Amino acid sequence: MSRRHEILRRAAEIFERKGVAHTSMENIAQAVGVKREAIYYYFSSREDILLEIILPQSSALLSHFRNAMATPLSATEKLHEAIRVHLSGYNPGYLEMSVMLRENHYFKDKKKLSELRTIWHDMTQLWVDLIREGQNNNEFNPNLDPKLAAFGILGMCNWMSRWFDPSQDATIPEIIDTFFTLGSQGILRVENTSTYNSERAIGSE
Amino acid sequence: MSRRHEILRRAAEIFERKGVAHTSMENIAQAVGVKREAIYYYFSSREDILLEIILPQSSALLSHFRNAMATPLSATEKLHEAIRVHLSGYNPGYLEMSVMLRENHYFKDKKKLSELRTIWHDMTQLWVDLIREGQNNNEFNPNLDPKLAAFGILGMCNWMSRWFDPSQDATIPEIIDTFFTLGSQGILRVENTSTYNSERAIGSE
Repeated sequence: MSRRHEILRRAAEIFERKGVAHTSMENIAQAVGVKREAIYYYFSSREDILLEIILPQSSALLSHFRNAMATPLSATEKLHEAIRVHLSGYNPGYLEMSVMLRENHYFKDKKKLSELRTIWHDMTQLWVDLIREGQNNNEFNPNLDPKLAAFGILGMCNWMSRWFDPSQDATIPEIIDTFFTLGSQGILRVENTSTYNSERAIGSE
Repeated sequence: MSRRHEILRRAAEIFERKGVAHTSMENIAQAVGVKREAIYYYFSSREDILLEIILPQSSALLSHFRNAMATPLSATEKLHEAIRVHLSGYNPGYLEMSVMLRENHYFKDKKKLSELRTIWHDMTQLWVDLIREGQNNNEFNPNLDPKLAAFGILGMCNWMSRWFDPSQDATIPEIIDTFFTLGSQGILRVENTSTYNSERAIGSE
């Protein structure tokens, strides 16, 4: 592992454990086993280190996502792919995903912040487009607001950054399956979905 | 508004905007329009202010949630209530909910931290129990892991703290409806849920 790479790795570990704002350059230097000056040789600030951890992770996620959305799959299969792509980011990228998603980040460097915002804006838009596509195809429930539905499913996936512990919790494939079933069919037994719906339809007539 | 109450309010506004770690006692004093010493008259640290914002909000949420779970409703109706109780916390408690949920909090006061953790542990347990109850009742899909399913639906609701803007987004009742439909029936049109399911069943035979 190059020195630069090692700094990024140790920083990600501390960011994940203590949160970014509670991490000093001194903490990172100690974890690497060097003087603080040695860190400044590679990075001019904690913010630079943070960006070099989360920008490549965000770009990679967007690019995998874009590829999945450009396939000729049905919207339902694309939803499965979308969840798979997103959650697969946690392995082996657990630290980077957690650091990226667990807190709002505040940057002085507005240019880099806007680069990050553009990536996340594009990602969100792809999710909303996927919901719209499924509604236009008659695969998805047309009564749901596509933005709110996208935020709901994306929220399930993003919130994982707050509870997932790779040493203790379910495996990523199990979580992908559960979230796809939940996002596509909901928690109700399939028989009850139609019963519940027709009861509601009768009740509202 | 009492001085103490005003301090809590202004602090919540700044925590929400800048994140807790980026907020100093000086920032809070300036927002209230007093000297820093005046803040220390009421609170011994930023941590104390933060706790006084999020502990009561967390307790209130747990207590509403517990009441909803103790009703004789079906598990499906309880799920609707659970989402309603959780999301209703954002109005008028938008600031408090956002500060509470948007980031992991780090406390030196381990006693208060453990008080907060107990509340959230109990809340999560109630969600898991609700999913189990619905599975035992034959209302919910028995193949889903109750903990993962609970984390998925709770994740939709909690992630709202990262995107919801009361001045711009949908209303809370619209979001409650969307998340209940999504959590109970999923994104698929009801007709497609059974089709998709039977196709999978055929395909896997």
